[in-house]
Amino acid sequence: MIDERAQAVLSNLEGMGLSQVLVSDPLAIWYLTGYYTEPYERFLGLYLAREGADGVRSVMFANQLFPDATGAAQKTVVFSDTDDPVPLVAAETDHDKALGVDKALTARWLLPLMDAKAATSFVLASKAVDDARSIKSPEEQELMQKASSINDQAMGWLRSQIHEGATELEIAEGLLGEYRRLGAQDHSFTPIVSFGANAADPHHEPDGTVLKKGEMVLFDVGCKYNSYCSDMTRTFFTAEPTDRQRLVYETVRKANEAAEAIIKPGVTFAQIDLTARHLIEDAGFGPYFNHRLGHQIGLMDHEPGDVSATHDEPVQVGQCFSIEPGIYIPGEIGVRIEDLVIVTEDGCKVLNSYPHTIDVVEA
Amino acid sequence: MIDERAQAVLSNLEGMGLSQVLVSDPLAIWYLTGYYTEPYERFLGLYLAREGADGVRSVMFANQLFPDATGAAQKTVVFSDTDDPVPLVAAETDHDKALGVDKALTARWLLPLMDAKAATSFVLASKAVDDARSIKSPEEQELMQKASSINDQAMGWLRSQIHEGATELEIAEGLLGEYRRLGAQDHSFTPIVSFGANAADPHHEPDGTVLKKGEMVLFDVGCKYNSYCSDMTRTFFTAEPTDRQRLVYETVRKANEAAEAIIKPGVTFAQIDLTARHLIEDAGFGPYFNHRLGHQIGLMDHEPGDVSATHDEPVQVGQCFSIEPGIYIPGEIGVRIEDLVIVTEDGCKVLNSYPHTIDVVEA
Repeated sequence: MIDERAQAVLSNLEGMGLSQVLVSDPLAIWYLTGYYTEPYERFLGLYLAREGADGVRSVMFANQLFPDATGAAQKTVVFSDTDDPVPLVAAETDHDKALGVDKALTARWLLPLMDAKAATSFVLASKAVDDARSIKSPEEQELMQKASSINDQAMGWLRSQIHEGATELEIAEGLLGEYRRLGAQDHSFTPIVSFGANAADPHHEPDGTVLKKGEMVLFDVGCKYNSYCSDMTRTFFTAEPTDRQRLVYETVRKANEAAEAIIKPGVTFAQIDLTARHLIEDAGFGPYFNHRLGHQIGLMDHEPGDVSATHDEPVQVGQCFSIEPGIYIPGEIGVRIEDLVIVTEDGCKVLNSYPHTIDVVEA
Repeated sequence: MIDERAQAVLSNLEGMGLSQVLVSDPLAIWYLTGYYTEPYERFLGLYLAREGADGVRSVMFANQLFPDATGAAQKTVVFSDTDDPVPLVAAETDHDKALGVDKALTARWLLPLMDAKAATSFVLASKAVDDARSIKSPEEQELMQKASSINDQAMGWLRSQIHEGATELEIAEGLLGEYRRLGAQDHSFTPIVSFGANAADPHHEPDGTVLKKGEMVLFDVGCKYNSYCSDMTRTFFTAEPTDRQRLVYETVRKANEAAEAIIKPGVTFAQIDLTARHLIEDAGFGPYFNHRLGHQIGLMDHEPGDVSATHDEPVQVGQCFSIEPGIYIPGEIGVRIEDLVIVTEDGCKVLNSYPHTIDVVEA
């Protein structure tokens, strides 16, 4: 158990009127205990409760087939594939109080826990954990920076792979080796490599599409460094941009930079989103920017608390999120420019230093 | 909507006293509609209800960022990142009846649907979908056979990679290319390649361990062919087995073959598990066989309804599952032999033909 993190979660819980929580998200359990396993269909849970004024009671529930969880919490309850974990959990919860559960807990376990009356009521309490994870410690910030610095270097490698006749898939498949050479361990998500009009689909998956001279190239990629994720997008040209291409590109670039420029503690996520959105709308491309401006990031590439027009909370020092405006005109063009930022006392630190300027690659 | 599959689910639901269900598992939605997307943190749902005596009402809920879901169900409700999907779902459900939900539905959506009183009660109804998926149609059986035939061939390739100085990771990383050469699209799970005592951990992940002359080698691998999964395990020797190694290996082999020999409609999953388990116990290795005998398989490598000592349902024609006894003596030896089988009218068809006999590889 990592005490200051468990304390942060319990303190957030108290703000919600709760004193006990069952955490099931494996990465949240890792964040809180340093123990990680992917349980697949088996049950994995961490129960946290306030004990006395400021104590923590912690119980881990782990299948015997998982790596040994002993020591991850004060108590570890181990069960086999033929045991039902529900009564084991219900034996630890306070039945006379509400129980917070995280959003990852599936109906498979939640409905039987309700039937077992493991608590007076069950309350979605992910925010208690998410808000703790959202504020990165100095050590976490260093890892986020390192992951993004590697991503900057990898973007240089990706640029070097742009040549007529290359396929999206072969560039995408070479990236993991490059990440490993640079010291990262894995992708943080399936890389997006999109040629030409494929880039107009923000979630296009790399396929056998062959690069033709003059097409634009979009890379949206990220790696994991010591469990922390990076995520950035750049869009390259392989011929001098037309006026319209330049207008689209520069509109996205300005939206990115205007949004990054206003970030500081107290500004809301919505204000940041709308700064970019209004700039794109004013340029006449509003309908072609059809997603939120960004998402928080850390142990997962997408963490809760997005940078969107409806998220009215102010940003806080230590939060890390993406700024990724885009314009996607179906069949024609797709441009996105994405950086990660961390909120500082008086602004933000942009973790990516790879240039935003128009770059025409000799393909 | 694939009508006979939706009808099978609704008929199973009726057996549970239910007439409406919300399906959230993306593979189950694919199974029922032919529409697939991985929604990550966004909401994806398929609502099915009985209409009249034998009609089906179907509504798909999809984020606008997903691939176009139009036509996947009778009605498609599309929403954006700033819409709350919960009231959209609640607008379609019958609030005066119980609602079945599948086990994959997370608390993030289930608790707000409860708050919205979208039904009189919420009942775990995965079994209605799982039982339909469990019985493979002739077309599905052909795909399962093809995936396993490719896996047999890949096992021959894996055997050819066994040589002194090889690492687990390099063999594991070469496998995807081999699968693709053989016509498969992907792994069905992260391949297990274990040298020597690493095989005594049934979930060891391949790492930099170097093969030393005389060590045993365990491969537990599977591929996906047109979305259907294969899964098999073989254990090889690189030196003549000692008497004890031979005893362990032959015990596992006999357990595998004895279990496969008794499979026919009406025999229970528990009887199959116990046939293998008693044979291993009688040889004195009972404590070293610490997992269920097998699992069902299809669109996922692990599907519900396991082959375990506590699963008392009889097997049915068309069900497909693994038979994978093992003996794991920590620090010493790990042996597992796994095939997939499909239940037939009078027995079962073993989908893997790769031999079970002791194989000493020149390493």
